[in-house]
Amino acid sequence: MRCEIIAIGTELLLGQIVDANSSWIGGQLALAGIDSHFQTKVGDNLERIVGAIRIALERSDAVILCGGLGPTQDDITRDAIARVMGVGLAPDEAVAGRIREIFRSRKREMPANNLRQAEVPEGAWVIPQMPGTAPGLVCPLGDKVIYAVPGVPLEMREMIAGAVIPDLRRRSGMTAVIESRVLRTWGQPESALAELLAGRMAELDRVGNPTLAFLASGIEGIKVRITVKAPDSATARQWLDEEEQRLRDLLGELVFGVDEQTMEAVVLELLRAHGWSLGVAEVATGGLMSTRLSAAPGAAEVFRGAVVVGADRIAQEWLGAPAGSLLSEAAVKAMALGICRVLGTEVGLAATAVIDPQEQAGYRMGTAFLGLAINGAAEFQPVRLPGRPEQIRQFSVISLLNFLRLRLLF
Amino acid sequence: MRCEIIAIGTELLLGQIVDANSSWIGGQLALAGIDSHFQTKVGDNLERIVGAIRIALERSDAVILCGGLGPTQDDITRDAIARVMGVGLAPDEAVAGRIREIFRSRKREMPANNLRQAEVPEGAWVIPQMPGTAPGLVCPLGDKVIYAVPGVPLEMREMIAGAVIPDLRRRSGMTAVIESRVLRTWGQPESALAELLAGRMAELDRVGNPTLAFLASGIEGIKVRITVKAPDSATARQWLDEEEQRLRDLLGELVFGVDEQTMEAVVLELLRAHGWSLGVAEVATGGLMSTRLSAAPGAAEVFRGAVVVGADRIAQEWLGAPAGSLLSEAAVKAMALGICRVLGTEVGLAATAVIDPQEQAGYRMGTAFLGLAINGAAEFQPVRLPGRPEQIRQFSVISLLNFLRLRLLF
Repeated sequence: MRCEIIAIGTELLLGQIVDANSSWIGGQLALAGIDSHFQTKVGDNLERIVGAIRIALERSDAVILCGGLGPTQDDITRDAIARVMGVGLAPDEAVAGRIREIFRSRKREMPANNLRQAEVPEGAWVIPQMPGTAPGLVCPLGDKVIYAVPGVPLEMREMIAGAVIPDLRRRSGMTAVIESRVLRTWGQPESALAELLAGRMAELDRVGNPTLAFLASGIEGIKVRITVKAPDSATARQWLDEEEQRLRDLLGELVFGVDEQTMEAVVLELLRAHGWSLGVAEVATGGLMSTRLSAAPGAAEVFRGAVVVGADRIAQEWLGAPAGSLLSEAAVKAMALGICRVLGTEVGLAATAVIDPQEQAGYRMGTAFLGLAINGAAEFQPVRLPGRPEQIRQFSVISLLNFLRLRLLF
Repeated sequence: MRCEIIAIGTELLLGQIVDANSSWIGGQLALAGIDSHFQTKVGDNLERIVGAIRIALERSDAVILCGGLGPTQDDITRDAIARVMGVGLAPDEAVAGRIREIFRSRKREMPANNLRQAEVPEGAWVIPQMPGTAPGLVCPLGDKVIYAVPGVPLEMREMIAGAVIPDLRRRSGMTAVIESRVLRTWGQPESALAELLAGRMAELDRVGNPTLAFLASGIEGIKVRITVKAPDSATARQWLDEEEQRLRDLLGELVFGVDEQTMEAVVLELLRAHGWSLGVAEVATGGLMSTRLSAAPGAAEVFRGAVVVGADRIAQEWLGAPAGSLLSEAAVKAMALGICRVLGTEVGLAATAVIDPQEQAGYRMGTAFLGLAINGAAEFQPVRLPGRPEQIRQFSVISLLNFLRLRLLF
């Protein structure tokens, strides 16, 4: 089964919007075991959309059109499909009723052209998932098929996951369920993870199911994706659980979270479990640590605040840093203890680093000092961080959080 | 002149990388007055790349291939072009020499397959801009042309701007120079800017040069792009200067910066000119204000630091906020004055807001209180901010910076 994607919208060609929708759909098709060899962007022009669909149908079994389903005169995806199918458009009364109802419930008057969205090519049907006013379409054409989904990411994702992928899998005779889970790791490069997992990966290569893949995610560390093919969802989940456990046995505390769990959410949860509150002295991290903590679930209960140090004097007068450079074990330990004292927290964090290309106090760019205090006892860890200034800041944040995570685990 | 873009790489189809290169190139083509009707993504497969190039050359006068020029066996863009041109590949000695030299200067041994990058289809020539080891190519084919540039964004951009666009413009007989400048505004919606500029836009519609366009940039405000077509660069710059002045006369202090200038950089520069230093009490902004200030040029000289308030008690004990909710004129004024006092700065900022959907102290989500202190005198501004929690934080930052900017201007 081959499926192409055509993203529709002149704004995509002009670079006003980056087409992230096709990438997301491509990822979903790959996970579902469906090949996608070409993805095309085309503007809001009937002839060119029709041409692009015809080329795609020659090369592939299915085409997903994304965008151009709205109510305005620019939205001509429906017309292009009808032209390719050689049929007319007819209003779908159920859809028209739902659109009227959406406007009624929002207490807004409905512009008449919204009913354009209820027009459906003859022989096509409407995707039941319909979070917005634009319905998605399934349009069979001989033994091939055209799908149309809106360009609004939220609506698109619901229709692709809920209707398009299942329909493609049914058409291609796939009955197995494919599910995946991501283990998030921090602290080792991909090559080291590969070495730790080498034995298990060789076993899986022979069996072919589940499969493992590494995804490098920059400041979020390296992800290990487990994908299983199973007869049903319950079995898939059980196999994912078993494989996750095997990998955790091999990777140990390198795994900090699963799927969408961030490092800051994990650390806040550990602190909550201990009943401890957190304060941060931000030097290298420049406010970024607070930004990430503030936005995480569970912050209000645990995160008491931070002092962002823009001048060494502030660290010395307020946080008890010793005179001299803040790039030292003594300074980050003093600041971690100092922030606990001034904010009245059990746990304190502090990081300093050489952010800019010029050396500081004899240290090269990327040298960082991590300090941590728990109930009056301070610890220290020096690290080397790669990248440009912005990345060094980001890496300082996650390295410092990981330092605390490991202390809270043991 | 019509030019298509083909992005090459299986990782693009699988959604592992979002194809931002095509979007950027699309934007550059549009600015240069060159039509681009289709953009395609294709994987690292010779037959399919050849097929995609042939389709593109049928529809358009030129094709830009992006990616697949590296040294590995996957990098087959050169082979695909040679196939389409019906010629062989021959080594370019000058390029081979430069690749050897790049490795020598980095003191690294050169793997032999790096010389694959010196292979050039017969009849093609090499783009002189060559920041990396992969040369870009210009490959004429009858009266049409294929360009190939690497997928590394930095290298791609240099070749597109320095060689491909000028070559396309030469081929299409364009001799005029097209240049643009962006004025960044904050404080009014697009409709209000359109009203202020209505007269000038009507004039320009008649003349046709320069042209104006609005670009909505979310948390960065609304941008007004001026594009001029001129006989040469000096004239283009002069016309841009003149038009910028006209628009500034109409928009006044709504314009905060030009091109890449951020609000935080502008505010830091104004503070530097006054010889004043800055401290921030971060409540609604949760560390984001410090993050943006720390990363801006000129921060070290002016930005003394911040207190991130994770619990009301911190604001009351440290910054002198009155007892009760921080959502009040009295609280943000007290905190703006308080942060000046504790950090010893001339200028202090503070913002509180209802970030989450539930009401607080009788105020709805998005209600924000901005406080500002200069040399001991405090001021206050209430605002309503749209969006989700993350956007409310971002809008709090830029609204507060803009509040200060306007005070520093007068």
